Amino acid sequence: MRISSLSRRGGVPVATIKFYLRERLLPPGTLTARNQADYDESHLTRIKLIRTLTGIGMMSLAAVREVLAAIDDCGVEQRELYQVLNGALCAQQAVSTDAAAVDRARKQTDGFIEGVGWRVGDDAPGRTALAQVVAALRDLGCSSEVADVFLPYARAAELLAARELDAMPPGAQELVTRTVLFEVAFAVMRRMAFEHLLARRDGEGAGVTDG
Amino acid sequence: MRISSLSRRGGVPVATIKFYLRERLLPPGTLTARNQADYDESHLTRIKLIRTLTGIGMMSLAAVREVLAAIDDCGVEQRELYQVLNGALCAQQAVSTDAAAVDRARKQTDGFIEGVGWRVGDDAPGRTALAQVVAALRDLGCSSEVADVFLPYARAAELLAARELDAMPPGAQELVTRTVLFEVAFAVMRRMAFEHLLARRDGEGAGVTDG
Repeated sequence: MRISSLSRRGGVPVATIKFYLRERLLPPGTLTARNQADYDESHLTRIKLIRTLTGIGMMSLAAVREVLAAIDDCGVEQRELYQVLNGALCAQQAVSTDAAAVDRARKQTDGFIEGVGWRVGDDAPGRTALAQVVAALRDLGCSSEVADVFLPYARAAELLAARELDAMPPGAQELVTRTVLFEVAFAVMRRMAFEHLLARRDGEGAGVTDG
Repeated sequence: MRISSLSRRGGVPVATIKFYLRERLLPPGTLTARNQADYDESHLTRIKLIRTLTGIGMMSLAAVREVLAAIDDCGVEQRELYQVLNGALCAQQAVSTDAAAVDRARKQTDGFIEGVGWRVGDDAPGRTALAQVVAALRDLGCSSEVADVFLPYARAAELLAARELDAMPPGAQELVTRTVLFEVAFAVMRRMAFEHLLARRDGEGAGVTDG
């Protein structure tokens, strides 16, 4: 298809497609004339993927670039792909300026990770990311014991991840898509659960008359 | 404290503080001279909160503004605060251009929400957000039955939210802080769980020799 069709079907302006091409986020099409290229379904899928990762996934272009490179690398195993994906996702978390506070928090979060039995590399980006969350909670006066508050979350995370892996198809692109989108879906559901539980606690179903 | 101290302790440049003041994200200090104002711990806390919500929380300034207004509104109840917070968080999810696809997905996600017994308003922002996730999954060829894939996430979300509410202090600021930060913590933990499970499946602990 021509670039105009790709734009229409992919839901992005032609200028954006040209940007993706320049940035090598999208492979070039097949040249059919000096200034014309032909694109196929794989280009369309790539555009939809970029839109989803940057849109709902809220990933930066730099993060998307790393992840796309891993997806395109046929030799990449699932585990390596996850390391790239997790690194890219965690890198978007703003770095706290209080390195000392993050270091202190890290001792506790590392202890917590070990306590739940998770064997992840010392350089796993999630370690720093989790420490930053704890440091931020402390900085804002939400000081509960790390293990107490995080344990149910960790248990749920492991259960859900285990189910995902059992159901996970081998394709790198689908793996990335599902991992990112289910993360968003869970956040949305948790927020809705709060609204539901508060409505129930207040003794009414929102918009429904309790009989 | 002077604005320079507020800047140093809050970890943001003076120019940023002045921006927050202009944008009314930060209340003015007490004027002590024509061009000098005095700030107190509440200003410091507000700055830390804005930094956390925009940083780790990845919230837009518009979203932060709405949430701060709700926090400052002493008459706001928890449920209303959640509606504002959830609306602000869900609004950041990029809108899919394929409204028809989102509509189709919405019928299924609404059915799913009803199926798990969640009583949330018809206009709850999470409804659209969840439909967008399903539409994106479909668009990228990840077509599993909505209910099958989402059910364990919904169950976990409700359990975790229920525990949070039991533990939740009444203060609006802490409620917002914990809701946003635990969302991030869960995402980080789920990513780490994938790495852990894949390492275990590959028969090795990353960086640890299995005995």
